[in-house]
Amino acid sequence: MALRLGLDVVTLETDWRHGADPLAIGQVLENDREHKIKAVGAVHSETSTSCMTDIGAVRDAMNRARHPALLMVDAISSLGCADYRHDEWQVDVSIAGSQKGLMVPPGLSFTAISDKALAAARTGGSRRSYWDWEPLVTSNKTGFFPYTPAINLLYALNEALDILAEEGLPTVFARHNRYAQATRTAVAAWGLELQCADPAAYAPGVTAIRTPEGHSADNLRNVILDRFNMSLGNGLGRIEDRVFRIGHMGDLGILSLTGTLTGVEMGLRAAGIPHREGGVQAAMNFLAQSNA
Amino acid sequence: MALRLGLDVVTLETDWRHGADPLAIGQVLENDREHKIKAVGAVHSETSTSCMTDIGAVRDAMNRARHPALLMVDAISSLGCADYRHDEWQVDVSIAGSQKGLMVPPGLSFTAISDKALAAARTGGSRRSYWDWEPLVTSNKTGFFPYTPAINLLYALNEALDILAEEGLPTVFARHNRYAQATRTAVAAWGLELQCADPAAYAPGVTAIRTPEGHSADNLRNVILDRFNMSLGNGLGRIEDRVFRIGHMGDLGILSLTGTLTGVEMGLRAAGIPHREGGVQAAMNFLAQSNA
Amino acid sequence: MALRLGLDVVTLETDWRHGADPLAIGQVLENDREHKIKAVGAVHSETSTSCMTDIGAVRDAMNRARHPALLMVDAISSLGCADYRHDEWQVDVSIAGSQKGLMVPPGLSFTAISDKALAAARTGGSRRSYWDWEPLVTSNKTGFFPYTPAINLLYALNEALDILAEEGLPTVFARHNRYAQATRTAVAAWGLELQCADPAAYAPGVTAIRTPEGHSADNLRNVILDRFNMSLGNGLGRIEDRVFRIGHMGDLGILSLTGTLTGVEMGLRAAGIPHREGGVQAAMNFLAQSNA
Amino acid sequence: MALRLGLDVVTLETDWRHGADPLAIGQVLENDREHKIKAVGAVHSETSTSCMTDIGAVRDAMNRARHPALLMVDAISSLGCADYRHDEWQVDVSIAGSQKGLMVPPGLSFTAISDKALAAARTGGSRRSYWDWEPLVTSNKTGFFPYTPAINLLYALNEALDILAEEGLPTVFARHNRYAQATRTAVAAWGLELQCADPAAYAPGVTAIRTPEGHSADNLRNVILDRFNMSLGNGLGRIEDRVFRIGHMGDLGILSLTGTLTGVEMGLRAAGIPHREGGVQAAMNFLAQSNA
Repeated sequence: MALRLGLDVVTLETDWRHGADPLAIGQVLENDREHKIKAVGAVHSETSTSCMTDIGAVRDAMNRARHPALLMVDAISSLGCADYRHDEWQVDVSIAGSQKGLMVPPGLSFTAISDKALAAARTGGSRRSYWDWEPLVTSNKTGFFPYTPAINLLYALNEALDILAEEGLPTVFARHNRYAQATRTAVAAWGLELQCADPAAYAPGVTAIRTPEGHSADNLRNVILDRFNMSLGNGLGRIEDRVFRIGHMGDLGILSLTGTLTGVEMGLRAAGIPHREGGVQAAMNFLAQSNA
Repeated sequence: MALRLGLDVVTLETDWRHGADPLAIGQVLENDREHKIKAVGAVHSETSTSCMTDIGAVRDAMNRARHPALLMVDAISSLGCADYRHDEWQVDVSIAGSQKGLMVPPGLSFTAISDKALAAARTGGSRRSYWDWEPLVTSNKTGFFPYTPAINLLYALNEALDILAEEGLPTVFARHNRYAQATRTAVAAWGLELQCADPAAYAPGVTAIRTPEGHSADNLRNVILDRFNMSLGNGLGRIEDRVFRIGHMGDLGILSLTGTLTGVEMGLRAAGIPHREGGVQAAMNFLAQSNA
Repeated sequence: MALRLGLDVVTLETDWRHGADPLAIGQVLENDREHKIKAVGAVHSETSTSCMTDIGAVRDAMNRARHPALLMVDAISSLGCADYRHDEWQVDVSIAGSQKGLMVPPGLSFTAISDKALAAARTGGSRRSYWDWEPLVTSNKTGFFPYTPAINLLYALNEALDILAEEGLPTVFARHNRYAQATRTAVAAWGLELQCADPAAYAPGVTAIRTPEGHSADNLRNVILDRFNMSLGNGLGRIEDRVFRIGHMGDLGILSLTGTLTGVEMGLRAAGIPHREGGVQAAMNFLAQSNA
Repeated sequence: MALRLGLDVVTLETDWRHGADPLAIGQVLENDREHKIKAVGAVHSETSTSCMTDIGAVRDAMNRARHPALLMVDAISSLGCADYRHDEWQVDVSIAGSQKGLMVPPGLSFTAISDKALAAARTGGSRRSYWDWEPLVTSNKTGFFPYTPAINLLYALNEALDILAEEGLPTVFARHNRYAQATRTAVAAWGLELQCADPAAYAPGVTAIRTPEGHSADNLRNVILDRFNMSLGNGLGRIEDRVFRIGHMGDLGILSLTGTLTGVEMGLRAAGIPHREGGVQAAMNFLAQSNA
């Protein structure tokens, strides 16, 4: 894990195949004797790589370093897919979006804020208006918004929360884990490689898969879209064109998952990606043995 | 093919594994020298058995017998799935529904009527009001209905016809045939038997599959509904509990078909129905080789 | 009230400005010593004339005549708008539709049947299939239908019944009565005449209004549709072009009613129908004084 | 018009009953010899006061002063209601929202940017990410967004633009003006006062109305919401509780407007606000004489 220092940002580099390293974070904080670092930012479930970061362990490392930085977490593609503990992990700012595990059309985002972060916002930072938390916090107390909200999406959110509550979060999380495991079983049978190299960091909501060296992931995605009318996620940044993603979060039935896997297996063949047959069969066998 | 005679109905019995036999129909009509038979009724695509009847051949047999009976055809599950020629086959009354190949919610039915049938309705039959064609024919000329129609469904129908026209009927029929063939490929790989015993009569929109002797088809359907949230059609009448149906008509993408097949294959295993693995794999291989 | 005798139908003629006359019905039944009359048919709320018939009084007249005829009632435009007592009035067959007081799109109809009517259906009448109650009654016991129902509309019905139950039927009926009274207040202020000449028979769900002699009601309706994008009901049969209708049933708020009245008042002016200004004002004054 | 000077903001105070004064703006700019002022901000149609600002005249004043400041305009409640000329008026930044004249649910905002503003953004301002125009401009060239957009609302926008194009913008603007005039006719008949004191600045999309001294506008709004299920806009800031607003923008038919006016007139009576009867009648008379 390399260290990159900018004017005011310390970026802990990784190989993009693991989650963020709590020990490395703790080390940086311990070295920051003057407490110049104001906040630690981490992504709970990084969509593009499908790697989870252990946020509780990050918090422990911060506590051990006795560092006052705020802990800020992007929970966009994990909220509603995996267990997330804003309070228990003493996260100061958690952000999430409507269009992933919450199954609502895109257009809403959510922010959970600790008292410590609210206090920091009152005194620090640059001039802001739209981003100012105060009017939102004040209005929300009476159930209102200071500006016109995307009201139709709030109805959708209300319904989505009812759906989640009815199924029960532990059941939802177990379903996503089972689907993720079925997907990885198919990937193994195809003889392909997962982007996430750490089994402890596998994301329950999405699985990024590497195409073999020299084979374009984006071409595979285009073939699948063209022939099977299925749009898969792409790799971003340094894994662009090296990775395709299978999402298995939110309102997804088991046959939608296996149907998705059939599209991938037929697509691998159609796009000429070296692989072994039998991924769908392996996933079906796994699902037949692991009851919901 | 046995013959059952009632007060005023002649039923040509079949084994429920073939379509209606044009030659047998012609024979009955030739024997009916006094023209007591007023109408010949046939089902173009019998949903429960997935057997097609060659309506053109039925018309030819009627013509050869020089019999004046009306030809009445149930095209409910074939309209929009298979080529159907009301005028060319000189059908007198064709009936169809909204909820099959036309992809509209259930609630509309359609009747195409020949001049000969309209004339017969004017002079014959019992007293009727709701079933009287005259007010409908009169109102429809100006684009109206004599009574309040299910107007929301008419909007859906309008859209559905646009969708069909955009894809083009020959393409739609070819798609259904390809899906039917993929389904039969899976059935063969599973080692199961089709209900329809005549390859020339395979329906493009639905495939009925027999469970092995001693194995309840309805139990299989319940297991699949319970575990995989997929509701399959059942056998009716004498094939109740012996048959389950896979529909592949209407607005169905290729991955919805393969997803359906994964549900059946996992269901066969879960319900303990003797079968061989590999049906989904065989269907995928077929689909990979037969481009749309 | 004149009497018209057909082969098997006795029609009690009225001036189309009153409901059916229970005394006249009783008289006919008393004269029918041989009980040739099998059923008495009446419309609870006749949409086109906006006249109610007192079904309880019809039943009393039948009972006084000790006549065994079935009582059959069309409750299409009254169900959900006015109190209706199938059991208490010993109605044998009540029919209704989804698209009036029940606020559901058109496409569903409802039939309530007494044991006496069910018994009559088992033994009498002509051959029927679609109209046969038995398979429906049998299937309905388990919550199913013998044929494919208009399932989307059943979801709408479910929601509509919840809405009615939440408001409460007495409140719903009172609301419709208040709206009807406001409408009649406007009509009186305009100096126009109601089609229904009997205050005891005013319908709560719809008000038919006569245009002055020599002034086309249909032209008025066209002007209103053209200028104000509002479609009013027309007169049927002998009151065609003499009557226009203001519906005030179902999911209608008070401002939709007054907005409707503004369209009528502006339309009367635009179409050159002799009338006095002030109908909307009178209705507003009435509504201001009569709290919901 | 008073002048308030802050660290870096010059606010031209008004009585909130007129639009912004182009001459006063020009005067301030001419006094700003050192060009410390970087941007002039104005609201095209101020919702809460229902006053328009003549943006073209503001631009002329800026040009006369030969001042390089950017012109930034809030067109939120005017876009789609009134003629707006981003290019012709050389506006540098125009912002608008989906939920007013564009008839789309809230959740989208729009920004039109001049090359001059783009250049300024590249070199100046504070650090930004979400507000950075560059990635949006780059992605939009290929029809995409750099982040997940509120895609459902984009479908709605597409439809809304078709609706506007079908009616034609000049017809849309004329309709809103006619509705605004009808509304002001009612207000005059009621004997109430408009918030906007300048006839040249009347907004076509919304009309703010003052309640008489000592009478709460918010109480009136509550009475109308409670009795007539209609929610009217409120006054903001210094005109809070002194003003209520009638919106007449977007997808509004003439009878929805008159229905709204009936709700206001009945509400004025119910809330005990001193007024004269006859506002609705006056509006109807106006609408009857002014054809669409």
